[in-house]
Amino acid sequence: MPLDVPPAERREFMDNYSSLTGGKGRLMLFAGDQKVEHLNDDFHGEGISEEDGGPEHLFRIADRARIGAFATQFGLVARYAMDHPDVPYIVKLNSKTHLVRTEQAEPLSLQWMEVDQVAELKAENGLRIMGVGYTVYLGSEHEAVMLREAAQLVRRAHRHGLVTILWMYPRGKGVADEKDPHLIAGAAGVGAALGADFVKVNYPRGEDAAERLREAVRAAGRTGLICSGGERMGVEAFLQRLHDQVHISGAVGNATGRNVHQKSLDEAVRFCNAVYAVTVDDATAEEAMRIYRDG
Amino acid sequence: MPLDVPPAERREFMDNYSSLTGGKGRLMLFAGDQKVEHLNDDFHGEGISEEDGGPEHLFRIADRARIGAFATQFGLVARYAMDHPDVPYIVKLNSKTHLVRTEQAEPLSLQWMEVDQVAELKAENGLRIMGVGYTVYLGSEHEAVMLREAAQLVRRAHRHGLVTILWMYPRGKGVADEKDPHLIAGAAGVGAALGADFVKVNYPRGEDAAERLREAVRAAGRTGLICSGGERMGVEAFLQRLHDQVHISGAVGNATGRNVHQKSLDEAVRFCNAVYAVTVDDATAEEAMRIYRDG
Amino acid sequence: MPLDVPPAERREFMDNYSSLTGGKGRLMLFAGDQKVEHLNDDFHGEGISEEDGGPEHLFRIADRARIGAFATQFGLVARYAMDHPDVPYIVKLNSKTHLVRTEQAEPLSLQWMEVDQVAELKAENGLRIMGVGYTVYLGSEHEAVMLREAAQLVRRAHRHGLVTILWMYPRGKGVADEKDPHLIAGAAGVGAALGADFVKVNYPRGEDAAERLREAVRAAGRTGLICSGGERMGVEAFLQRLHDQVHISGAVGNATGRNVHQKSLDEAVRFCNAVYAVTVDDATAEEAMRIYRDG
Amino acid sequence: MPLDVPPAERREFMDNYSSLTGGKGRLMLFAGDQKVEHLNDDFHGEGISEEDGGPEHLFRIADRARIGAFATQFGLVARYAMDHPDVPYIVKLNSKTHLVRTEQAEPLSLQWMEVDQVAELKAENGLRIMGVGYTVYLGSEHEAVMLREAAQLVRRAHRHGLVTILWMYPRGKGVADEKDPHLIAGAAGVGAALGADFVKVNYPRGEDAAERLREAVRAAGRTGLICSGGERMGVEAFLQRLHDQVHISGAVGNATGRNVHQKSLDEAVRFCNAVYAVTVDDATAEEAMRIYRDG
Amino acid sequence: MPLDVPPAERREFMDNYSSLTGGKGRLMLFAGDQKVEHLNDDFHGEGISEEDGGPEHLFRIADRARIGAFATQFGLVARYAMDHPDVPYIVKLNSKTHLVRTEQAEPLSLQWMEVDQVAELKAENGLRIMGVGYTVYLGSEHEAVMLREAAQLVRRAHRHGLVTILWMYPRGKGVADEKDPHLIAGAAGVGAALGADFVKVNYPRGEDAAERLREAVRAAGRTGLICSGGERMGVEAFLQRLHDQVHISGAVGNATGRNVHQKSLDEAVRFCNAVYAVTVDDATAEEAMRIYRDG
Repeated sequence: MPLDVPPAERREFMDNYSSLTGGKGRLMLFAGDQKVEHLNDDFHGEGISEEDGGPEHLFRIADRARIGAFATQFGLVARYAMDHPDVPYIVKLNSKTHLVRTEQAEPLSLQWMEVDQVAELKAENGLRIMGVGYTVYLGSEHEAVMLREAAQLVRRAHRHGLVTILWMYPRGKGVADEKDPHLIAGAAGVGAALGADFVKVNYPRGEDAAERLREAVRAAGRTGLICSGGERMGVEAFLQRLHDQVHISGAVGNATGRNVHQKSLDEAVRFCNAVYAVTVDDATAEEAMRIYRDG
Repeated sequence: MPLDVPPAERREFMDNYSSLTGGKGRLMLFAGDQKVEHLNDDFHGEGISEEDGGPEHLFRIADRARIGAFATQFGLVARYAMDHPDVPYIVKLNSKTHLVRTEQAEPLSLQWMEVDQVAELKAENGLRIMGVGYTVYLGSEHEAVMLREAAQLVRRAHRHGLVTILWMYPRGKGVADEKDPHLIAGAAGVGAALGADFVKVNYPRGEDAAERLREAVRAAGRTGLICSGGERMGVEAFLQRLHDQVHISGAVGNATGRNVHQKSLDEAVRFCNAVYAVTVDDATAEEAMRIYRDG
Repeated sequence: MPLDVPPAERREFMDNYSSLTGGKGRLMLFAGDQKVEHLNDDFHGEGISEEDGGPEHLFRIADRARIGAFATQFGLVARYAMDHPDVPYIVKLNSKTHLVRTEQAEPLSLQWMEVDQVAELKAENGLRIMGVGYTVYLGSEHEAVMLREAAQLVRRAHRHGLVTILWMYPRGKGVADEKDPHLIAGAAGVGAALGADFVKVNYPRGEDAAERLREAVRAAGRTGLICSGGERMGVEAFLQRLHDQVHISGAVGNATGRNVHQKSLDEAVRFCNAVYAVTVDDATAEEAMRIYRDG
Repeated sequence: MPLDVPPAERREFMDNYSSLTGGKGRLMLFAGDQKVEHLNDDFHGEGISEEDGGPEHLFRIADRARIGAFATQFGLVARYAMDHPDVPYIVKLNSKTHLVRTEQAEPLSLQWMEVDQVAELKAENGLRIMGVGYTVYLGSEHEAVMLREAAQLVRRAHRHGLVTILWMYPRGKGVADEKDPHLIAGAAGVGAALGADFVKVNYPRGEDAAERLREAVRAAGRTGLICSGGERMGVEAFLQRLHDQVHISGAVGNATGRNVHQKSLDEAVRFCNAVYAVTVDDATAEEAMRIYRDG
Repeated sequence: MPLDVPPAERREFMDNYSSLTGGKGRLMLFAGDQKVEHLNDDFHGEGISEEDGGPEHLFRIADRARIGAFATQFGLVARYAMDHPDVPYIVKLNSKTHLVRTEQAEPLSLQWMEVDQVAELKAENGLRIMGVGYTVYLGSEHEAVMLREAAQLVRRAHRHGLVTILWMYPRGKGVADEKDPHLIAGAAGVGAALGADFVKVNYPRGEDAAERLREAVRAAGRTGLICSGGERMGVEAFLQRLHDQVHISGAVGNATGRNVHQKSLDEAVRFCNAVYAVTVDDATAEEAMRIYRDG
């Protein structure tokens, strides 16, 4: 229990945390902020289900699948959550498009909404908003602005009993290799210094990635580390990698986006359930594959 | 009904929305913010009616024609609306000139007026202000500033029961083709993530534009998509294209500026009525042409 | 009466407006903000009266001559108005020096004082402050900042019953010709969209300037257009040009600085009286020349 | 009495002003802000008294010598004034180091402390803080920021009855010659437009500097002009130049730093007394030399 | 006692100060902000204890060793201090990564947390937070922003009775040699002008470093000067250098990070105790070596 959660909100925080993590400290995050981050690239095109073309696909998956939480922007929550009131939400507080490439200008993503506004939306509508998320581009020349916003919002969220997840991504001209395991460990440590409950980091490159991720898990300390799902890949490979993350690396979960929502609703739900089983229920990759196949 | 509209303002929001869209969810927006965006280029010159030289021409059209709303800047509303109290207004909250070209510097358009100030103007004068508008230049190096302003103003407008329209325009060195249908779909999705009630996008280039716009309509989800009127063109072609937007693409309307106000008052009114008939009354292009010709 | 003037201040606004414009809607503005804008260049040197070397020269002229108002910075008003309490003042809210040339960096002039602070100075001292002024450099890469400040201060001034004058000057690398009549018309239209009561623009270049200025007068609509006095010129030519501005172009007045204060007190007063006669009393240039010569 | 001093503070302002200027409108300012402006360059090295190595040397001089006021940063006042409660202080509100040279980047010096915080320090500790100071780098590309801060702090200081001194220094790529007398006059005029009670300017270069400074004295008007002490020079030459500033140029005083504190305590006190005699008591340079020699 | 500590907080300040400095004005600071400043470089790799891989190692050392205070970020305090309630903390208020090198862009480190938020964390949890720290990069083109933040936070901390420590580091293109003793003295003087209770500076380069550091100690005046521990070095050399700093240079202490936490818990505790003995108890280097060896 972080000490910046005030006494009156500690029960609320604990309930949110426990619900998010299946009572086991493990987080299966369905990441759905790509409509801004990747525009329509993840939602339309070859190999992507037609169903994925509209935003409600995300909410339908979140509604029917076993997940820890579904992370998306405030505006989408405001427009769809009345029909999906049981979904546990994480409101992603900043987002940027990928139109300005790193070669053109250093990345900057500013906070769209205040934590108090999220708390108000939650209270007025009785939504199951469990926490907030934010991306920090470490190594950007604008890093100082994002570090400050992140530090402030972690504290503010805690004052409302909300759980915090920081996307810690090294990016900018000063970053030689975004998937260097040692750099990822550094990013995880910064997330801990910012007081986040969870840090979401890139999965390292390389053969021994699962072993090398341990450095980051240790650096994060009491802050739980989860890995981004990364590029599209086959289900079996995905589930095996996830199992390794939890059982070899010591990660407490994962954040998966494209690998979920580019599937049809039915397949996406089965896939989520498989992912959840590995993440929270300690299922093996094989057991999870059965869930994926058989529902 | 977006959930960030507080319960006490939901009736107000619904009335505004219904009035704007003729009770049918369709929006015919008379866009009149070009005195800043294009300086005097749209109001003076060959092929432009002499009547268009002064700002009141816009208000006279808005007063006499069938429109969903007339969008213009706060200052003009403050100076002309006493003589045109029945016009439904959208206050456009930011504007920039076209003097600084994209090749010179990345586009930035900051919010001129606060939503609360619009609400105050409305309340003190009993004006029919139905909502607010704002332009986001996605892909500009200043995108982060505009995304934040847009997210904030959507919420603030909703708290006053006002409807929101976002002009979502990709622009900047990082944007290869502003009229790429896939990019337009991305822009529409960002508008949805920002919580807008309507997004206004460029009409795509190309032969099969009406079909290709469908991707954007889907990406926008519950956020209504309307297309900008674009360059000057013949009335018949305009009305046919509009009909396609609604009936092939699934757009819920249009935003038309130059094609309206560069005409004389009488012709502009007939033209608006024709556009309204296509947009809201499901008239065919031919039926609309009759309205345009015969009044 | 602009609608952003609240009901309780409408009488105050009307009195200020009427006093400023001689009850006829015509404004003779004595512009005295050059101590910042041009440093000491306008106040010392060949052809400039020795009396012009100190700031009080400006106040003495304003005190003795017929003028609509004297525009200068807050600090000078605070330091001299106790001895010149009958002068009608316009407080110029922003100013910059000309040391950074446009070729070096894009122009930016920020607001020095808040409108509320001006209102406080007025109320505490019973001064005749009738309004406020502000310069916008359209086409500067910093245009967005000045547009926002201008929009905000127009509203805020109106809430105090104060009249607003915007200096609308295209300037920056994106501006090919600051004296292009079509561009001046655009600038006038932006002033109208900002809600200003008066816009001050450059006088166009060229033979048929008086005719060509009409486009700007029309674009300004209900916002009164006044021209800057421009470079030093002979009195007779000045008065004739002014007459043309009013009677050919339709401008409602002028803003004159150097052509006034570089003269000795006595001559400056006679000159102002001549200018006032043309501007407000519909005097001919010849009648005004007699006033200038004979006092 | 500036009109932005509210009635309730006019007595306080007058007392501060009178005390600062020896009841004669003349100001001998002991300038001690160089620990930031010049780092340790002015306090350690050849020809500098060993005593000057620590900050208390400045306070000891200020305590024992005849001065109008001692100008230094808030932090030093907070740490030494308990032992030097009789010193009249001016709190210098901004400072920068000289590490970033003008050729590298345009100068910017931001306000460290708010005027209200100075007033609080004064009230809580019964200190003799008479006013505040601030430097504006005219001609810097950041000039707009400093002009705004200066305008605001002058007004805020006046509302507390505090006297204001602006260091008006042209500096930046756009400034060809910082010691051009005509430019110095311009800077003095800007200080007047900002409402300062005193402006501190560079002493002009050249043979007839004392005569040429008159232009600046006139431009400053009711704002008193004082000259910076400038580079180290011999005592006799210094006192003669100072006499000329007052009696030929019409300056109301001087601001002297290095020429004071680089001397031993005893010599510095005698030197201050000599400077004070010329500045306030109309002593001749010869009379002042006797004071300097004999104590 | 700095005068910006309000009377009601002077006892609190004095208790904090006395506790921090062992009642002798000497400060042994265990600096633990490197998880951001150096990412994971200081915590993982050759010659670094495995125990140093996780954040709690820092807290365990701080808990068991004799130290003046342990400086680290708010987020880590919030997450670990419940298990280490007896540790005296300094909350480091800003931090940046080293990813953007000085050659790429000028350094900027913004304040993450407000002093009031630190005071709240302390009060709500009964923590032993004694003060706050902040880094200023003098000579950076962003220096003005950090100087302002530092000046403000010193005052704000004092209003809560908290002690302040400023890391004063010259850095940027304008800085030729960060370890020039004369420049270090300048940095120390700026810290004094900012009102800091302690300044932490680089240890100068060169043979006669201990002597040359005296200039900085004098420049800091009543502000205590402490040296950063610098690069990894042998224990004996470290302790001797530390002894020289105190007894030759006149420094009041040291800030040591890597040289502490890269050791195993047991060795780190013995090392801290040795450092503390030299710093506070006037132990010789030899006596301290015995403590290091024997515990």
